[in-house]
Amino acid sequence: MDDRVREHAETLVGWSTRVEPGDDVVVSVSEGAHDLAVAVAEQLGEIGATPLFTYSSGETGRAYLKASGGGDGEAPSFEAGEHELALYEAADVYLSLGGGRNTAAAADVPGPVRQAYRRDRQGVREARLSTDWMSTVHPTRSLAQQAGMAYEEYREFVYDAVLRDWETLAKEMDRTKRLLDDGSEVRVVAGETDVRMSIAGRTAVNSAASVAYDSHNLPSGEVFTAPYDTEGEVLFDVPMTIDGRRVRDVRLTFEDGVVTAFEAGENPGVVAELLETDDGARRLGELGIGMNRAVDRFTDSILFDEKMGDTVHMALGRAYDANLPEGESGNDSAVHQDMIVDVGENARMEVDGEVVQRDGSFRWEDGFEG
Amino acid sequence: MDDRVREHAETLVGWSTRVEPGDDVVVSVSEGAHDLAVAVAEQLGEIGATPLFTYSSGETGRAYLKASGGGDGEAPSFEAGEHELALYEAADVYLSLGGGRNTAAAADVPGPVRQAYRRDRQGVREARLSTDWMSTVHPTRSLAQQAGMAYEEYREFVYDAVLRDWETLAKEMDRTKRLLDDGSEVRVVAGETDVRMSIAGRTAVNSAASVAYDSHNLPSGEVFTAPYDTEGEVLFDVPMTIDGRRVRDVRLTFEDGVVTAFEAGENPGVVAELLETDDGARRLGELGIGMNRAVDRFTDSILFDEKMGDTVHMALGRAYDANLPEGESGNDSAVHQDMIVDVGENARMEVDGEVVQRDGSFRWEDGFEG
Repeated sequence: MDDRVREHAETLVGWSTRVEPGDDVVVSVSEGAHDLAVAVAEQLGEIGATPLFTYSSGETGRAYLKASGGGDGEAPSFEAGEHELALYEAADVYLSLGGGRNTAAAADVPGPVRQAYRRDRQGVREARLSTDWMSTVHPTRSLAQQAGMAYEEYREFVYDAVLRDWETLAKEMDRTKRLLDDGSEVRVVAGETDVRMSIAGRTAVNSAASVAYDSHNLPSGEVFTAPYDTEGEVLFDVPMTIDGRRVRDVRLTFEDGVVTAFEAGENPGVVAELLETDDGARRLGELGIGMNRAVDRFTDSILFDEKMGDTVHMALGRAYDANLPEGESGNDSAVHQDMIVDVGENARMEVDGEVVQRDGSFRWEDGFEG
Repeated sequence: MDDRVREHAETLVGWSTRVEPGDDVVVSVSEGAHDLAVAVAEQLGEIGATPLFTYSSGETGRAYLKASGGGDGEAPSFEAGEHELALYEAADVYLSLGGGRNTAAAADVPGPVRQAYRRDRQGVREARLSTDWMSTVHPTRSLAQQAGMAYEEYREFVYDAVLRDWETLAKEMDRTKRLLDDGSEVRVVAGETDVRMSIAGRTAVNSAASVAYDSHNLPSGEVFTAPYDTEGEVLFDVPMTIDGRRVRDVRLTFEDGVVTAFEAGENPGVVAELLETDDGARRLGELGIGMNRAVDRFTDSILFDEKMGDTVHMALGRAYDANLPEGESGNDSAVHQDMIVDVGENARMEVDGEVVQRDGSFRWEDGFEG
């Protein structure tokens, strides 16, 4: 076994999810993630935890969804499986090992079917999110292709981003967290973007790739909060792939916290579908600030792109409980779709009118010009 | 998609498990069974059932078991995962899609670890067996290799055995079922085998590859019952692979229903491990009579071999409830290991002293010589 695969698995069950003896762990294995699944199995055996492996495949998903397809143009309805709910409700930890063989495997599933499926399975998703869950990917050739990279080059990239000294990065990110926790309003200005949002009363998450930090991605390396009352314009200038379809230059106009107009430079229908999912899909659920400088290029994978230094991202849809005061519910939706703004040049972020980041440099970093 | 893969999936959810709208279905996908999983997903979507896909891999199993390995030569103990139990308890149907990439993937797991795992997970197995479950395999190159066959040749073999007119075969098998239901004692004589067992009060299963027939294998094509009070000698002369290790010419001596001596021509340790699992592992749980003449050669896969015409098989370990009077429990064990006797030549089977099969021909078949 490649040492890096083993280290990846060690990080996942050790640093990231703190698996303990006797824990019941669900391990979701994507089509191309077999090798990482084997390494995770080894770690869980050593710890004395009990795994159940599930299989995640764009192709089985597509086949199921297309066959379920309503009829007469009507969207089908789906039942949340009681068996799947029972599985997650009894689980302590959920590990999602991404990495398929074709990022466009489900590209031809009609939007309304996709939306109905997301909506009808919200209970299953909530049950999964109530575990100590963690998402990661095993580097596959398909993801390398998506990134426009050679396979070995891509593997280097992934392990550089994943196998970090997370404790040291957590200390640095804590500075950003404190800025956001102390602030009431954030403004992001970058090119054609000029947007303000309230963050008063919300708690930022120092997302250091561990459930101990309320963080659920490996790699992580971002600080995020749950904004509201968004006003202004955002141009998401980093291209991305949503449900297998390429989207670029999405422009959203917010008034009173709600998207009132949108444009997209490619596949605007994807954005329209997203916004139509439910009421919460037209509000922001997250503002995130990328701080993992090992992610040094865009690879058309949100897991990595949104962590890149010199970027901020905003998500339409569901807010995370960790950002909210105890017992308060934030923006609710069946979707959570991140989109990214490059803030490396001609850009600034203000908290309560004070510039805290300019052209990608934070105010405590060399080269920062307030 | 290959038409035969789709027909296989149709048979599985239609004839075999009678999946209905709203059913919660667990689909276990082996490393090499992806294509069949896609076809099953399509069928379940059409019906309106809800699938959860699990991942079954000899390599994750091996990694987990070897890492769990006790210490100081002691066998480890395992916990039955509450999450896995909850999954099966809430499921209506369980489909096992076998077909890996290496039949010896877990060959180096120590016997005591394997035994402990089987024993400690008996509850999980019972929960799975309480669903409408069905085992099948997708033809893989690994299974073709195990069978000593070319890949295309093996695929023909598998689909010939699986895509049968099951209703017609069920009618023929019903004759054998009635013979066993009406009888009290079976005697099998073949070469060095001469064994008697009681079947009084037991009900034979006409195993026509459908839960509607209390049958749980696709392909099937056997009639089986749960014998007791076995006396005599059996030479299982059909070679087989158990837990990745080749076993041949296993000879068992039964007295008062219990194995009192054994020999094996290769890997006797595998048989010793099996017998040591628990008390029930030393008694027969099944006598089966192969009747699927589309299975026309041994392929070193018990799913097929035990269904072959001109064979009978006996299993050490667990008896199936379907053979027992309501409320009565039969032989109980963590194992159920089938082994096969060739009865094509110099062989006869008697029920209550009457010859019902000679040299593979049943008494209602052409060529039968009483």
